[in-house]
Amino acid sequence: MPHINLPAEFPGIRSLFMFRPETAAPLNALVQTLLHNPHPTLSAGERELIATYVSGLNTCKYCCSIHGAIAQHQLGNNALLVKHVLANPETAPISNKLKALLKIAAKVQTGGKNVTDADIQLAKNEGATDIEIHDTVLIAAAFCMYNRYVDGLATWQPDNDELYDKMGEQRAREGYFTAPFKVDRIEQQLQNS
Amino acid sequence: MPHINLPAEFPGIRSLFMFRPETAAPLNALVQTLLHNPHPTLSAGERELIATYVSGLNTCKYCCSIHGAIAQHQLGNNALLVKHVLANPETAPISNKLKALLKIAAKVQTGGKNVTDADIQLAKNEGATDIEIHDTVLIAAAFCMYNRYVDGLATWQPDNDELYDKMGEQRAREGYFTAPFKVDRIEQQLQNS
Repeated sequence: MPHINLPAEFPGIRSLFMFRPETAAPLNALVQTLLHNPHPTLSAGERELIATYVSGLNTCKYCCSIHGAIAQHQLGNNALLVKHVLANPETAPISNKLKALLKIAAKVQTGGKNVTDADIQLAKNEGATDIEIHDTVLIAAAFCMYNRYVDGLATWQPDNDELYDKMGEQRAREGYFTAPFKVDRIEQQLQNS
Repeated sequence: MPHINLPAEFPGIRSLFMFRPETAAPLNALVQTLLHNPHPTLSAGERELIATYVSGLNTCKYCCSIHGAIAQHQLGNNALLVKHVLANPETAPISNKLKALLKIAAKVQTGGKNVTDADIQLAKNEGATDIEIHDTVLIAAAFCMYNRYVDGLATWQPDNDELYDKMGEQRAREGYFTAPFKVDRIEQQLQNS
């Protein structure tokens, strides 16, 4: 049960956005800018993968599931790829540059000071630009916020892969500014039964 | 030296805001909403104290110094109070409600799932409202982002208390939307010599 009185029909961060629209606006604008808006070189799917990976390291079920579903829909509907990156980015079929960026993201997850010159040099050697390194650090840092926000208030996080897939497909297509997916908790329980 | 090529005359997060204005906009709007805009019950100084305390736990020199200076100017120019809260909130001359909220913030800093029902109940017993608990969790989570962002890119973080005091006085008065404080690195070094 959530730690505060949240609208029951919205899962995860969406229930917090309904509770406090004042902070929802910049939080939603940040995720739209970081993950969905056009980027000089990183695809939306690559950026969603970084967000998914960090959310996995923070064991945030809601964020890991929804961003994993978005990444999947943006990367040729490849669910195995997302699972592989979550399990071990080093052996996943992704570019060496993305592997180096995910290594930086993992360091940020444990604390900003843990990113070393060697981590940065490795990414630069693989062709990473300053903007790619900047955005990787900020995506990783931002998901250390979103994950703590969603878990710290004990929001409702459905156990239904089909639901995340449906929400992820919508977000992958429309971005973060469209109306949130409304999930009726009772209907949801019926579907699961 | 910063991990990427940042404008040298701006310290900490301000150098990152100049580097990437697209993400600066929502990041700055978030801190203005969380810490400076009018709040139903928590003063700006109390909210800055939460941000300072979490930045101290994350050992982020820039964020802890600047938000500590802002808190000081918003709480009757009381530098000792900020130092006391950083050292041990339990014995600091603050309300029991703020102590309970700082306890929640410390749990969020270590991970969202570490916030317990007992932590929440303690805060509610001391009169904390749902909005106060929500904002405490989000401020703590947000500073886990800002701290990682500032440290993860190895930004320039001056060693000059007078400088933080001057910047803090300005922010306490004007909020976060005014022009950033421009610090010429050479002038700065001369002042320090």
